[in-house]
Amino acid sequence: MEFKFAIGPRVRKSPFFDAAVAAGVTRFTTYNHMYMPVSYGDLEAEYWRLKQGVTFWDVACERQVEIVGPDAAALAQYLSPRDLTRCTSGQGKYVLLCNHAGHLINDPVLLKLNDERFWFSIADSDVLLWVRAIAAERGYKAQVREPDVSPLAIQGPKAEAVVCDLFGDWPRDLKYFWFRETELEGIPLVLARSGWSKQGGFELYLQDGARGSELWNLVREAGRPYDIGPGAPNNIERIESGLLSYGGDTDDETNPFEVNLGKYIDLDIEADFIGKTALREIARTGPKRRQVGLFLDGENIVPNQHRWDVTLEGEIVGKLTAATYSLQLKRNIALALIELRAAESGRGLVVRADDGPRRAEVTGIPFC
Amino acid sequence: MEFKFAIGPRVRKSPFFDAAVAAGVTRFTTYNHMYMPVSYGDLEAEYWRLKQGVTFWDVACERQVEIVGPDAAALAQYLSPRDLTRCTSGQGKYVLLCNHAGHLINDPVLLKLNDERFWFSIADSDVLLWVRAIAAERGYKAQVREPDVSPLAIQGPKAEAVVCDLFGDWPRDLKYFWFRETELEGIPLVLARSGWSKQGGFELYLQDGARGSELWNLVREAGRPYDIGPGAPNNIERIESGLLSYGGDTDDETNPFEVNLGKYIDLDIEADFIGKTALREIARTGPKRRQVGLFLDGENIVPNQHRWDVTLEGEIVGKLTAATYSLQLKRNIALALIELRAAESGRGLVVRADDGPRRAEVTGIPFC
Repeated sequence: MEFKFAIGPRVRKSPFFDAAVAAGVTRFTTYNHMYMPVSYGDLEAEYWRLKQGVTFWDVACERQVEIVGPDAAALAQYLSPRDLTRCTSGQGKYVLLCNHAGHLINDPVLLKLNDERFWFSIADSDVLLWVRAIAAERGYKAQVREPDVSPLAIQGPKAEAVVCDLFGDWPRDLKYFWFRETELEGIPLVLARSGWSKQGGFELYLQDGARGSELWNLVREAGRPYDIGPGAPNNIERIESGLLSYGGDTDDETNPFEVNLGKYIDLDIEADFIGKTALREIARTGPKRRQVGLFLDGENIVPNQHRWDVTLEGEIVGKLTAATYSLQLKRNIALALIELRAAESGRGLVVRADDGPRRAEVTGIPFC
Repeated sequence: MEFKFAIGPRVRKSPFFDAAVAAGVTRFTTYNHMYMPVSYGDLEAEYWRLKQGVTFWDVACERQVEIVGPDAAALAQYLSPRDLTRCTSGQGKYVLLCNHAGHLINDPVLLKLNDERFWFSIADSDVLLWVRAIAAERGYKAQVREPDVSPLAIQGPKAEAVVCDLFGDWPRDLKYFWFRETELEGIPLVLARSGWSKQGGFELYLQDGARGSELWNLVREAGRPYDIGPGAPNNIERIESGLLSYGGDTDDETNPFEVNLGKYIDLDIEADFIGKTALREIARTGPKRRQVGLFLDGENIVPNQHRWDVTLEGEIVGKLTAATYSLQLKRNIALALIELRAAESGRGLVVRADDGPRRAEVTGIPFC
């Protein structure tokens, strides 16, 4: 089944939209109320380019929630269960956002621009609404807004070469998630070593939405000697690498411990944060479910369009959230969120795929 | 330009998804993290069916935010600037949700199921996050969740006939936005006189997501004598009728007075509500912008894919948010949010459409 996509003013166009269209984008999704390219027509070629070469992605839909003001640092800490006391200017950190019940509501990268200015580079939920509500109800002295900032990712083993051809040698010394405010031919941007793959790379946080095509073309030209091509976050690579898709792999009641992210929860810090009491209780009693990797039997699997039931002796014990045929492992792999007892025994599982039942075997994450 | 739509597990399928696909849906958007059909291939035929006959729509993406508990009524009032003291069980009300700055963040229909149970039937923003944050920070004794509830709309002048064939005669006496909990062949649902058109009709709030196709088929069969057909909220009709599209016609700083919704703001009630101070100040100084209708010169207009600048003597004075060729008026109409002085003079405006400038004349809303 193929459906057309409605383009209208309720959902925003990215600053890179026109450039992506000119480059031949064929398929979109929406993310944070913005169109997001997901393919240029050959997912397998895009996968290999990401794994072996270099690719660039319109990920403007990773919107920023900016917090500015004298209480910005205190507010950022109240919002995130990770200890931020040693986070310095120019440093980014992967943080989880949980609600008061300890359930995941987003998993952004937090960028500390200075002591009074932070960006949460968010996954697909309206964190802006949430942060404004918290800040206002608690009287934090901080402005909360969505700035004109739109990331363009350059990913793959040759990404560093492209970025150094554009910016000089200094990006080689950037540590993972660290960043610097800079410019490119007068285009203001933040350059960070980050991106939603495990192949290495950078994100250019464009700070002038009117100059999207200009930045796109600069990257394309710099990448030409390396055979750069347009792409998008790649579902095969991210499953192989075990990267969490917020909203894809999580549901309304997923807590960080269930998806193996407990290491980003610092329950013993002095500062209060949202969900601290609930997360302590979950940590004490242990999670009831766990995200696991699965190998699936049978023919090469068509990626799931919705969640599939995972069963043990005929009883539903959880959901498969993402399945794909791994081009590297040459077998069917999947992520699933299942009851602890099923995760621990790991045997006898059956997945109810759209094309029929498949035997499944539990394995570790990441796959590659 | 036509693009394909990525279907994957991050965005949810509606309980009516399979039925809509079987009925020939051709085009989707996403809304509240759910796929929403927007056309079955002939928008003009769908328009006339809505205006002259009866049509039914998968609007499951109008998700419910349910508030239950002893403080539910107090919380609902704190969230909405409309006086709810006289709202009784079985009554719905169109309410605005504003943030602490008085800016619109949603415009749901509020359904009061009983003194301790309310639904906000929401437009496209994550109100669930926001309400949970407010409830937790202020200690309201209320649970906030998204229940298994999915509206199916029946709209058009013959909608009442279809609904009465299904439910008996009692729906004739339902006043606008009122509702009743009932069932249809054992399928639990809420029947309300409501829907996002001005052609009259009902919404069936399905309360069992496993029975979507069953309900769809019952409505289709009951509608057969009236030549019912599948459809979707219709952009031409809604612009003609001046219905607000939250997120389409509004931006991050739109307040209710700007979009002519001041009548839903009760600044003098005793209860506190979010945004009260800010809204009082806006009411005192008056809004800086106003939503107006525009007639546009020139050839039949292709609906805008993004906002167009509105200019006065070469200076940008606001944005056109929605343009269409009106099938009823047989001329180009549009909604725009522009500076007050431009709205009040109403002359000499020029819209920068994608295909070139168009002269524009201010007019009232609704158009029809």
